[in-house]
Amino acid sequence: MDDLNTPFMRMLISRIRAEDAFGAWENKKDSTLLSEYLVTKEERRAIPIIGDPDPETVDRIHYFYQAIALAIEEKSGQMAVPIMKLSHEGFGRLFVIVGRLVVLSKTLRDVHRFGFEDMAALNRDGCQAVDNAIAIMEKFPEVAAA
Amino acid sequence: MDDLNTPFMRMLISRIRAEDAFGAWENKKDSTLLSEYLVTKEERRAIPIIGDPDPETVDRIHYFYQAIALAIEEKSGQMAVPIMKLSHEGFGRLFVIVGRLVVLSKTLRDVHRFGFEDMAALNRDGCQAVDNAIAIMEKFPEVAAA
Repeated sequence: MDDLNTPFMRMLISRIRAEDAFGAWENKKDSTLLSEYLVTKEERRAIPIIGDPDPETVDRIHYFYQAIALAIEEKSGQMAVPIMKLSHEGFGRLFVIVGRLVVLSKTLRDVHRFGFEDMAALNRDGCQAVDNAIAIMEKFPEVAAA
Repeated sequence: MDDLNTPFMRMLISRIRAEDAFGAWENKKDSTLLSEYLVTKEERRAIPIIGDPDPETVDRIHYFYQAIALAIEEKSGQMAVPIMKLSHEGFGRLFVIVGRLVVLSKTLRDVHRFGFEDMAALNRDGCQAVDNAIAIMEKFPEVAAA
């Protein structure tokens, strides 16, 4: 899978594997671990958006944005801090911050249904967020360094 | 109390009173409500910093930074978004964001002991945070408007 070779995908895999304190997933392939991120349109429709989002889904969202922040750090050499605040109903805000610059800002909705059609979509969305962040840092280098 | 006449203090009082859905505090003086923010040095030392911080303390910290954000909005006419993430142990991060600019960034520690020596100290810390934020916005107006 060539898709796994982007900095974002590498960071996502290592972020997921960091949870494997006892080596239980050592023999699991990367693609198996990442498949948790895949939700087809039909599956998505079937997920209810009432009540608290599944804690595993919330963890997955955290790892996704942490991987973006880590890839930004790797590319730029500057520290990127993700901060996410979710309500119990699955709404929230997400920021990734470098220095005094917000390099990624998102309003999260219906997080119960967080997921991607396929591996290419997961990779594309992650890489796009990283590239956008780097472009914003290049536009405001003073603020990113502040 | 002249201290109560700053935009920050007015915002803090209205933020606290916003919780009074049933009018139970209507006859309480502002200074009585604000006195919850006062913690003397002796009291502070007596507060244990192990275990979860008191939920009322956490609320108080939220209102404090929300009042700062509201005063920034009033002064600048631009939306200021506070976002705070606390661990159960009382450590955390706080950001106030205007556009793409981080106008206030704080590492929170020992939030169990959050409080101020007297009303003047509460007012001073709040107003200073507001003034610093406005100064940063004036330095990077493009980013605050982005």
